[in-house]
Amino acid sequence: MENEKKIDVETKDETKIENVDQNMKNTLEKVEDDLFWIDPRQSRDVRVLGFNWFNEDKTYRRFALKYQNVIESISEPLNILVGNTAGGAIAFYSDTNILKIKVKLSHKFLMSHMAYTGQAGFDLYIGSEPSDLKFYRSSTFNFKNDEYEFTFFSNLSGGHLLVLNFPLYASVSEVLIGINKKASVLPAHNYQDKGKIVFYGTSITQGGCASRPGMAYPAIVGRKLGYECLNFGFSGNGFGEKEIAQLLAQIENVKLFVLDYEGNASGPDLKLEKTLVTFIEQLRTFNPTVPILVLSKITTCFDAFYEEGAQLKKRLNEFQRKTVAKFHKNDPYIYFYDGGELLKDIGFEGTVDGVHPNDLGFYEMARKLTPVIKFILDKQKG
Amino acid sequence: MENEKKIDVETKDETKIENVDQNMKNTLEKVEDDLFWIDPRQSRDVRVLGFNWFNEDKTYRRFALKYQNVIESISEPLNILVGNTAGGAIAFYSDTNILKIKVKLSHKFLMSHMAYTGQAGFDLYIGSEPSDLKFYRSSTFNFKNDEYEFTFFSNLSGGHLLVLNFPLYASVSEVLIGINKKASVLPAHNYQDKGKIVFYGTSITQGGCASRPGMAYPAIVGRKLGYECLNFGFSGNGFGEKEIAQLLAQIENVKLFVLDYEGNASGPDLKLEKTLVTFIEQLRTFNPTVPILVLSKITTCFDAFYEEGAQLKKRLNEFQRKTVAKFHKNDPYIYFYDGGELLKDIGFEGTVDGVHPNDLGFYEMARKLTPVIKFILDKQKG
Repeated sequence: MENEKKIDVETKDETKIENVDQNMKNTLEKVEDDLFWIDPRQSRDVRVLGFNWFNEDKTYRRFALKYQNVIESISEPLNILVGNTAGGAIAFYSDTNILKIKVKLSHKFLMSHMAYTGQAGFDLYIGSEPSDLKFYRSSTFNFKNDEYEFTFFSNLSGGHLLVLNFPLYASVSEVLIGINKKASVLPAHNYQDKGKIVFYGTSITQGGCASRPGMAYPAIVGRKLGYECLNFGFSGNGFGEKEIAQLLAQIENVKLFVLDYEGNASGPDLKLEKTLVTFIEQLRTFNPTVPILVLSKITTCFDAFYEEGAQLKKRLNEFQRKTVAKFHKNDPYIYFYDGGELLKDIGFEGTVDGVHPNDLGFYEMARKLTPVIKFILDKQKG
Repeated sequence: MENEKKIDVETKDETKIENVDQNMKNTLEKVEDDLFWIDPRQSRDVRVLGFNWFNEDKTYRRFALKYQNVIESISEPLNILVGNTAGGAIAFYSDTNILKIKVKLSHKFLMSHMAYTGQAGFDLYIGSEPSDLKFYRSSTFNFKNDEYEFTFFSNLSGGHLLVLNFPLYASVSEVLIGINKKASVLPAHNYQDKGKIVFYGTSITQGGCASRPGMAYPAIVGRKLGYECLNFGFSGNGFGEKEIAQLLAQIENVKLFVLDYEGNASGPDLKLEKTLVTFIEQLRTFNPTVPILVLSKITTCFDAFYEEGAQLKKRLNEFQRKTVAKFHKNDPYIYFYDGGELLKDIGFEGTVDGVHPNDLGFYEMARKLTPVIKFILDKQKG
């Protein structure tokens, strides 16, 4: 864990961290390339979760290719974001002692308030079953590149369930999984067949600004409850369009819809007030008894420090509460939760920039939401 | 909070996030430059905390310039890291309605597993007094540049205590603070005159990989207890050198030393076992009754998933515990705390890469350490 040798340090004003701190270098182990490489698009050895139309399209996109024209007609930013892989995961059982990935990104952002491991890295959870997963490590790499390789481990023993979460704010054209040639591999067939939880919303829903993919709040909720979670958070573009509701309504085996888009629809024209009723009605066309949870926004610095922000938040909170109450008269499957409660217990420490949760904020969101969601799911089961 | 206009989106594979999500752009408000600019090196209007020799040297360095030869004789990586501004802060009272900074970095890293707001940004806390500070916002910027400007607010009302935390993993040659020309400014004279807590250690002590400076665990502890905390975490270079102990021993008005360097001194030659006794003895030469808290390492993925790691951790844990017990026979002011306890309650979610805490991990470290440190400080007061 320490560096014994005298090392060269670049003298210019930007130094490679590994020249100063060996613990910070990208890959800790060197692995020869004599591995068996799995391409999830062509292999039945692993299970891909989080991309609802993956078996049909074999692309890591959040909406089916057949809906491409709908997405493009809404906006080009949305089209880019649909390619971002938030919520995706690869799950398989293996006794491999080596795990490596080779990744090709087809799109990335370069945000300064989100670690690149969260934006464009994968992270790995290891366990015996879906309800028993421990975070192991995330893939670090040089973010100037659009391709990277990363070795998660090279001397692990035993058989495990391995779950790799996809990047939150980048698009992936290819990911190959390298394992020991002699290792057995079994797709996680028993993994999350309980049905799906669909999250629709904003940058916060998408996972901005988690330090790694597994810390986005829908991912944490999914781990805690053992459900497949589909992440339809579209950074800055959660406007509640009717067309999007129509696409979400097509998804089969949904056990809960979470609508968390206040943050993007609270601008001057208050899109939230104009869209929420229609959005719910569209979901109901094909899902008359699937629970819907309307979740208002977390408290931002604008809400906390400015009277104008507090007033707007209050107004939209009441609007959502009343809308749900109105539906509830004829629809017992609809719920409201006040997002302003979520970060309350950790003071104001739960964001990175006053708006987007850090890992503390996401963990706290999930900690508070999980029992609420569990209550709704249990009630539905009867 | 939303973007109404049709916006241009670059078609290449890297898109500016603000073209997709307006909430992600670097500065939310535009501010004319007719401000009063404070240079903390030349002004008595603000108080600079966290750099023990600032009044002498007027540089944002963690050791005095007069010790430069000592630092250079140890290593060039250490010399670079001493310039990193972890633990620094600027504190003042003002009724300014505008707050802007202009920053010149003299050194930076480009790590992919730490948000750039944490590496090289400032973050702002606002309150009425040191014990009542709320996080407001961190400075985002284009991390390809070595200089940046950021507007924290442009229409805040009332008078406040404003605390700006320095970057964790970059060196700052200049920071200018822009305020409204008519605003009053008072240095935070009442701020943290209780004495200092000195933290010595590794990348984790330095704050790797907090999403913003205020989330490093020494910073959180400092806020909770209202003490000035000096951060001597040296990423990958917390080797426990006798010379460093001698420098730390010179610091006046220390109320507690925290020694948290196992992570860097647990390599093959087990430097921890070779240095800890001497390190403590050196601190004691000038500080016979100042409490010393020896803190063992948090649990990393290596400790958790590998028998070899668990064994090493156990050995060094026992070594530290026994060393403290041995001292304790003649020295009642020395304590041990098992760092393996710190992240226990949050499963394995508290790191970004299996080694370095994320904001959840840092918050949890501080949550558990604060009462321990308070107990020691209170006991000392009698």
